[in-house]
Amino acid sequence: MAQRRVLLVSNSTTHPTGYLDHCAKDMVNFLGPDVKTILFVPYALKDHDGYAAKAKERFAVMGFKAASIHEFEDQQAAVASHDAMFVGGGNTFRLLKTLQDKNLIQIIRRRVLEQGMPYMGASAGSNIACPGIFTTNDMPIVQPSSFLALGLVPFQLNAHYLEPDPTSTHKGETRAERLAQFHEENDLPVVGLPEGMMIEVVGDKAVLRGMDRDVRLFAPGKPMETRKTGATLDDFMQAAEPAHKRIKHSE
Amino acid sequence: MAQRRVLLVSNSTTHPTGYLDHCAKDMVNFLGPDVKTILFVPYALKDHDGYAAKAKERFAVMGFKAASIHEFEDQQAAVASHDAMFVGGGNTFRLLKTLQDKNLIQIIRRRVLEQGMPYMGASAGSNIACPGIFTTNDMPIVQPSSFLALGLVPFQLNAHYLEPDPTSTHKGETRAERLAQFHEENDLPVVGLPEGMMIEVVGDKAVLRGMDRDVRLFAPGKPMETRKTGATLDDFMQAAEPAHKRIKHSE
Repeated sequence: MAQRRVLLVSNSTTHPTGYLDHCAKDMVNFLGPDVKTILFVPYALKDHDGYAAKAKERFAVMGFKAASIHEFEDQQAAVASHDAMFVGGGNTFRLLKTLQDKNLIQIIRRRVLEQGMPYMGASAGSNIACPGIFTTNDMPIVQPSSFLALGLVPFQLNAHYLEPDPTSTHKGETRAERLAQFHEENDLPVVGLPEGMMIEVVGDKAVLRGMDRDVRLFAPGKPMETRKTGATLDDFMQAAEPAHKRIKHSE
Repeated sequence: MAQRRVLLVSNSTTHPTGYLDHCAKDMVNFLGPDVKTILFVPYALKDHDGYAAKAKERFAVMGFKAASIHEFEDQQAAVASHDAMFVGGGNTFRLLKTLQDKNLIQIIRRRVLEQGMPYMGASAGSNIACPGIFTTNDMPIVQPSSFLALGLVPFQLNAHYLEPDPTSTHKGETRAERLAQFHEENDLPVVGLPEGMMIEVVGDKAVLRGMDRDVRLFAPGKPMETRKTGATLDDFMQAAEPAHKRIKHSE
């Protein structure tokens, strides 16, 4: 089996730069010299054509030929025939529901986990690489048939991770409080990935990339831990049992 | 059929006052002189005993005898035997999943919509009074069997509604952007209810109560509208068809 290669980007655009600017160099390094074609997945947003045009233009600047999955009649074949894929951000529930409705979950898993196709995601596209979508910040605007997702990595991600604002009088839960609630119900570790940061996974190795921002690690029953760019997450890659089996859901 | 009576509170605690302090007077007025016993529902939080103790103490100060549903063997009978109910805040997904797992959805609907039992909710407890949980801010830490909820009112609520922060460089979606995404997929109106505010529904009449804070109304295809305490939401009470049928979900 080929080696798994996954690049999970927290966010598509980092203030004050443009679309994918903050991660373009990392994407090029990650994809390497053999990748020529990229399959873009626009399903997290409503306007597929507009989103695809934006992504194609950005990947062209990086030197890649991108096509959007929504332009293909046979979408499973499109996943099979491209060298790599990039799943864009937007609403995680809408993205996962669309992949489920179009029967694309298993083919993507096979391509990435068995055949080593490089997978890149930003925001929602990174969330669905996790065992489930249980730690998304998005609004549940549509109902997927299951919260279980691609399971390309054995940990959960919290994209756009934000520290609590100590001056706020707002009583909605902070991000850390929400993740503590997740751990009241589930035992998967969670990576709180701030904007500008990413996780590069090759085989069973994972490393933090991006700007010099604190990444917060939440493992059930342990105090929060902080790591920075260049640190490994190899300890988060050791799932005791298949993560899909360890998640509470109704089916 | 008795008249529907529903009080939807945005949040349990408003800075800088204590638990339910900002809405206690409205609750007492809403319940009226005939209500003696209140059934509390603690399922949105993990610690049922602790949550119940806090709620019982607070309702005792208001002059009511509260019991917590988790203390009863026969929970459906508990819903039937109390004069009113209050569903506390916490995680909306956990709350809805628990009510579904315990087969409490239909009995609560009957008690409120047919028998006129007063229903009060705060935060998650208000979210589940809507047609679905599609506009919650909470993290999907567990998977309910359906996103459809109690449907006690024909509109969606966004509790803890927050205006966008114009100084923020964070690229996560604002609340208004999230609600616009909801309207890309669904056509139910949404009330953006800031902390300190509540909606009182009697029969087919609804009125805004609480502090003097702007309530934002989002109807699909219309510009955002603003109303204040004392304004009616009667126009939001006119569902063209049963709201449960108008929501996209997978079942």
